[in-house]
Formats: sequence, structure tokens, C-alpha cells
Amino acid sequence: MSLKVLSRDEVFAGSPRWRDPGRSNYLAMYSSVFGGVVTDPALMVMPLDDHVINRGDGIFEYFPVIKGHAYCFDAHMTRLRRSAEIISLDLPFDMDTIKQITLETVGISGSQDCGVRMFLSRGMGNFGCDPTTTAKSLLYVIVLKTTVWENFPARFLKEGARAITSHVPLKMGFYAQVKSTDYLLNAMVDLEAHRNGADFGIWFDQDGHLAESSTENVVIVDQEGILKYPTFAHMLRGTGLVRGVQLAAELVKTGELNGIRQTNITPYEVQESAEIFGLTSGSVLPMVSLDGRTVGDGRPGPIARRLSDLFEKDMAEGPAEVRTRIPYP
Amino acid sequence: MSLKVLSRDEVFAGSPRWRDPGRSNYLAMYSSVFGGVVTDPALMVMPLDDHVINRGDGIFEYFPVIKGHAYCFDAHMTRLRRSAEIISLDLPFDMDTIKQITLETVGISGSQDCGVRMFLSRGMGNFGCDPTTTAKSLLYVIVLKTTVWENFPARFLKEGARAITSHVPLKMGFYAQVKSTDYLLNAMVDLEAHRNGADFGIWFDQDGHLAESSTENVVIVDQEGILKYPTFAHMLRGTGLVRGVQLAAELVKTGELNGIRQTNITPYEVQESAEIFGLTSGSVLPMVSLDGRTVGDGRPGPIARRLSDLFEKDMAEGPAEVRTRIPYP
Repeated sequence: MSLKVLSRDEVFAGSPRWRDPGRSNYLAMYSSVFGGVVTDPALMVMPLDDHVINRGDGIFEYFPVIKGHAYCFDAHMTRLRRSAEIISLDLPFDMDTIKQITLETVGISGSQDCGVRMFLSRGMGNFGCDPTTTAKSLLYVIVLKTTVWENFPARFLKEGARAITSHVPLKMGFYAQVKSTDYLLNAMVDLEAHRNGADFGIWFDQDGHLAESSTENVVIVDQEGILKYPTFAHMLRGTGLVRGVQLAAELVKTGELNGIRQTNITPYEVQESAEIFGLTSGSVLPMVSLDGRTVGDGRPGPIARRLSDLFEKDMAEGPAEVRTRIPYP
Repeated sequence: MSLKVLSRDEVFAGSPRWRDPGRSNYLAMYSSVFGGVVTDPALMVMPLDDHVINRGDGIFEYFPVIKGHAYCFDAHMTRLRRSAEIISLDLPFDMDTIKQITLETVGISGSQDCGVRMFLSRGMGNFGCDPTTTAKSLLYVIVLKTTVWENFPARFLKEGARAITSHVPLKMGFYAQVKSTDYLLNAMVDLEAHRNGADFGIWFDQDGHLAESSTENVVIVDQEGILKYPTFAHMLRGTGLVRGVQLAAELVKTGELNGIRQTNITPYEVQESAEIFGLTSGSVLPMVSLDGRTVGDGRPGPIARRLSDLFEKDMAEGPAEVRTRIPYP
């Protein structure tokens, strides 16, 4: 073997090689490294010495854009700021500028319905670990053709998903407070589920209480019609969960739910529940089996279905505080 | 504000902006995305959708090259393969090919003395978490002008470094077995040390036993002249530690050490020790104060200095099994 040294033109001439058509669903990327937006997927890259690669020293957010509006944008921006504060990551711009850059990047993509991922990294360094050695923090925003919501198989909502109790050790409480990119254990949860013929793995904490799934919060409806969700000690404060709980208040008013409670939830309660479902940005993910046993009647339950409808309505025509208009050029 | 959409040429025209001269010490990078080597630092990039960015789903290694030979190369390659096995990451090539690519990339750099970082990532995906959704795993190798050894201030070896007991929660045992890029807590250890006017933070495990520092193993020499190092339950099996222990056997023969022992080490023992030092690929890092208290006589101790000399000799003219010749073109 003899490796070839590639010129810039050769790297880009080879570009189709590193993206098959199915993956080129990236519409636009802002990078504070470049100081602007690129629309060529081959340019949607990060310098290899960014500490988010080398050290997982960065945070991220994801939100969907529906009908030209960013969903729960302010909640995501608040969490981004909070994550940065906890790990003492100085923002590359003030929050207003970060918001504006993000919304403008979506605007440039031209897409009315898409998914948006943001990364705030410690910045480029010298491949060391010390956060004080980087030049400055960096912002990346990428606009994806499809929302996470579209990425979940329609089967989940129609037939329900299969879940297992995960045996991967739960991430430390620290990571429930910071939405960092250190997700290897979450990836292991997905791998374990996949190998067991399941769609989701559910983490319980060291005390045996329900925590979360790899990228979803998990809630139950018990036999008394109470919607229960865990405390925030060992799970991330999901924006989908927080909004879902707000929307579920409607179902208490109509009598479909008998209450909503944030509390410790035991495996016993999870196994006995009438419904189990995941909540993530705008998505409800009914889980109809757990460790091979049927949950409820084995089909998505009435609360999950109602909540999914409420989410769809909220994303399409909800109040101004959850729908931020995209400034299209 | 109105963001600018940049062409490929504009991105690269702006390239000097994103690397000040002090940072352009990257000599060559191999990327299996490109299928070859680049020497322009502006091309030393990773696709933003690589799971190592988004999910910390990847592993890495670092080794120094001294006088045209990779130091402890086989030990690093063995650990890389082991890390990959533990997280079920299918190698992009067989190990022989990975080794050859790595050594050839160093050869192309032309450097006789440099540092080499390797990343094995789960590959490009769709920004999801599930490891089964990526196209294929990827290999990146980057050659740095300076070795880690050169990066540590000369002061450490001459005057000794300052250490503190870290209060950052220790990473889980899982991460002691896998050299993954999920290093945010390690970065927090460095930040805490920095804020306390120290050079290193030392982690103790949940049982109170000595674990490691952010990127170094930590060993002690007790008052009886026994070199003690922790078990591998809560610290990474550092190649520098393993080789250091082999080299230290020489000091037992000469009577400079009275023994070498792998055992649990309490904070009490650490505080009472004659010497404390860090070990990393080819480097000895004497720590002469801990939490503001003086260790030994406040200067790098005799064992640390002797071991440092042994390392230097080993790197320059050690046996074939620790010195792998670089194939320069």
C-alpha cells in the first residue's frame, strides 16, 4: 500500500464518494469558523482539533421547524445557555446573536419544515484536554431536511414501539444537567435495544427509579389515570417532556387524565402501567411492550394518541411563545 | 445582521482566519473519508455528521514519534482494538492496514519527532444516536509537530507541578476500559485545577482510592521506597504507566526502589508519600505539592527523575518491541 496525498481539488472531486445521495439531506450550515453559511454538504465540516471531537467538550441542541416556525425555540436556547454555564463555556456571541444566527441559517435553507442541530464547542485547541487552552468557543448550526419527528418510523405511532430495560450503566447525574455530546453510553443503550429486537432501551437509576431512554424522556400513565414522569436528578430536562406536560393539562381538564405528577417511579410501577411513552421534541413514542411483556392492550394508548394530536396542533398553530417565526430572506 | 453564504473558494480564502500561525502545527492528516492524506491544515476536518462529534461515539489513541520511531506503537494498537471491541465498533480496515496507514501518514509528514493522534469513529450518520445507523466506521490520523512530551512545560520536570484533589465526579468504570472521546469530565478536572492555581487535578474513586488525573495515570513512591500504582478498575490502562512500571524494575535491581506494587491507594497514603508523579506516553510529571501541602522536599524526587531518564533512553534507543520504524518515503 502507498497512501496518496490529495490536493484540495482532489478532496472535493472525491466528495460524492463520502456522501451517498441518501445522506445529502443537509440544507445549510453556519460555522463561526468560516464566519458564514455554506450550502455544499462537502463543506459541512469541523476542524479536527475542535475540542468537541477530541474531548467531548461541547454541548448541543435540536429543535424542529414546522410550517416556517422554530418549535420551543426559547426553551432550547435557555437550556443551551444553562448547559454552557454549568461547564463554564464562554459563549462565542451573546445569546441574542446566537439566536439570530440560528434562525437566519434556517431562513437561508429556505425550508419551512426541517430539523436544526446546534453545537457550541470549546473551540480549536492543540488536541489537549484543558478547556483554557482553546482559542475561543465556536458555534455550528446545521439544517436537516427531515425533522426527528419524521425520522421515527410511522409504525411507532400506529403500532407502538418495543422497549427493554437497559443494562448499560446510567450516565452520571452531571450529564442530566448538561446536554453535552458525551453520548457514548446512550449509543450503547440503542445498540443493546437493537440487539434485543427492541426499538428503545429504558434506563433506571442506581436507586432503581425510571430515568430516561437514549434520546427520549419516558413517562407512564398508571392504572388510576395519573400521568407520571421522573424527577430531573438523573434525566435531562427534555423540552418535549416539559411541553408535553403543559399540553397534557388539557387532558386533565377533559377528564381523560386524573392528574399529572413528577415523582420517583419504580420498575414495578412501569411494568404495571396502562401506558408507557417516550417524549422528545414534538414527538410521542408509545411503547407497547417492555422486556417482551405487553403494556396495556398492546397498542398505543388513548393518552399517547391524544397527546400526539395536541403536539401536532401545537407545532402547527400553537401560541407565539412556542413558535418562533423564521426570517426567510 | 445578515449572514453571508460562502462559496468553497471563500471558505478557503478565509482559511488563515481560522488558524493563527501558532496553531498550524499539523503536518499531515489521513482520513478514510477522503481515502488519502492531506497536508493543508484547512483540509484537516471531519464531516459534521460523524457520530464522534454528535454522540462521542468513537475512540482515540495518542503516541509520540521519537527519532523516526513510533513509541509503544503495538501497545497503543492493542488498546485501540480492545476499545473498539468493547463498544462493538467494527474496524474500517483490518488492524494491519490501520497500522500501515498510520505509520505511512507519519512517513508522509517527514517528521522524525512528532505526536500522532488517531480517531476511530462510528462514522457518518444522520445525527441520530443509534450506532447501527451509520454508513461505516471511519479512521482519522493526524500528525502534530510537537509531542505531548514537549507540550508539558519544562518547569514540571525541573521544579515539579502542583496538584489538587479533584471534586469533579469520577468517570464511570466503563470509561476506564474504553479510550473514548467522552472527556468532558476530564476537561472539568483540568478547569478546576487551573482555577485553583494547580497544574493537575487528581481523581479518587467512590471508595476513596486513588484513580487518575485528567490525561495521566498517577503513581506514588511511599516512605518505604515502594512504587505503588492503582488497579485498573477506575483508571485507564495507560501505556505510559505500563511501560513505566517495566522500566522501574531496573530501579528495583539497583536498590533505588524497594518494590513495585499495584494496589488500592488511600488519600492518606498519597498525602504521606515520598513522591507523587504522573505517567503518560513517555513522560514523567513530578507533583511536588498536593492541595497546597508540600510533597517530599518540594522538588521532583529521585525516582521521578531516574524514571524520566529511563524513558528518554527507552524512547531514543529502546528495544524493537517499543520502537516501530516509520516508513519514510
